Amino acid sequence: MSNVYATEKPYRARRTPDRAHYDKATVHAILDEGLVAHVAYVGGMGEPHVIPIFYARHGDDLLFHASSKSGLGLAAKQGAWMCATVTLIDSIVYARSGFHHSMKFRSVAAHGVTELVSGDDKLAALDFMVDRLEPGRAAHLRPMNDQEIKATHVVRLRLDQVTAKVSVGDAPNEEPEDLDWPVWAGIVPVTTVFGVPRQHDPSVSDAGRPALSGPLFRK
Amino acid sequence: MSNVYATEKPYRARRTPDRAHYDKATVHAILDEGLVAHVAYVGGMGEPHVIPIFYARHGDDLLFHASSKSGLGLAAKQGAWMCATVTLIDSIVYARSGFHHSMKFRSVAAHGVTELVSGDDKLAALDFMVDRLEPGRAAHLRPMNDQEIKATHVVRLRLDQVTAKVSVGDAPNEEPEDLDWPVWAGIVPVTTVFGVPRQHDPSVSDAGRPALSGPLFRK
Repeated sequence: MSNVYATEKPYRARRTPDRAHYDKATVHAILDEGLVAHVAYVGGMGEPHVIPIFYARHGDDLLFHASSKSGLGLAAKQGAWMCATVTLIDSIVYARSGFHHSMKFRSVAAHGVTELVSGDDKLAALDFMVDRLEPGRAAHLRPMNDQEIKATHVVRLRLDQVTAKVSVGDAPNEEPEDLDWPVWAGIVPVTTVFGVPRQHDPSVSDAGRPALSGPLFRK
Repeated sequence: MSNVYATEKPYRARRTPDRAHYDKATVHAILDEGLVAHVAYVGGMGEPHVIPIFYARHGDDLLFHASSKSGLGLAAKQGAWMCATVTLIDSIVYARSGFHHSMKFRSVAAHGVTELVSGDDKLAALDFMVDRLEPGRAAHLRPMNDQEIKATHVVRLRLDQVTAKVSVGDAPNEEPEDLDWPVWAGIVPVTTVFGVPRQHDPSVSDAGRPALSGPLFRK
């Protein structure tokens, strides 16, 4: 088992290679903190579509669900090649030149063939996705019925052609001769905040109440 | 001038049409609040790529920049058809069944041919993008030099084939017979928070200091 993804062209970072990372620890940490992946597939006329979707990483698999009647679900059923990108924005960078305005961010792009997960693996994957929102929650839910299971595709994108890009720090990346240009420069931090859970009125139980714990809810 | 985008197949919402909106007011409000678009283009082997990128809406144009040497920049120079998706997540929905777990969200997907903006329009577009981060800031910056201007493509995606999807409210969408299932149900609010601006050490001026005002910084 390698600790590094053997990403090849054209899925390696072409530019700013110093920001590119291929080690699994970096890739997994970003995927485990993200809430939504933007998944792209190519439609029947060769046109790209981008869909935001909840996902879960399970080992070296990226798992997500799709309605069996959606464009995304139909493409996955055909084993389409897709790209899933997860982006965490940490700050907006205000530089002294327009050119160096930027963001500090951590992102992962995963490319590969998709396949449908079926049978017991499918049920386990659905539970795994729910439990990402609150460990142990899936066991408390009203079980899926056959119609719901049929209406939902679980899609696996194997992590293989994967690139993480990471830009961190508090300082703009600037030309040295710009540093005394008379304009404010710095960063504005950007954070995703999860608020207090709001119970739905008819709720009758505290079982599975979200505790906002785990990598997804890192503060 | 129509107030509604005349979006056609396959860019109209196929499923959940009650969540789809094509009026410009809804589309523009979402685009003006978003910080990053996920832009997809199709590479030389027919493979989709998804890139997160800062953007600005200007009338019925979506403007973003790309390095002239990047895959995104090269595709834009060739007038590639792209899809730009902007997603605002408002809450995670915890339902009583796995099937109805969901999110409340507002998103826009814009599809169309890209083209490069050039000449004075290019410089104006770059300033417009900076001023989205703080009104009036661009006038205070060290002007772009020829090398920087050449290294940066400004890309226009005309808003035409556009679909907004909106799912709001505080209640899970559930089967009536599930409402007394003994599990906690409700939502966890999700918010993007912009922190206190942190000045870079050698900053010498308050000109252009971000006041976090405008649609982007809606609290």
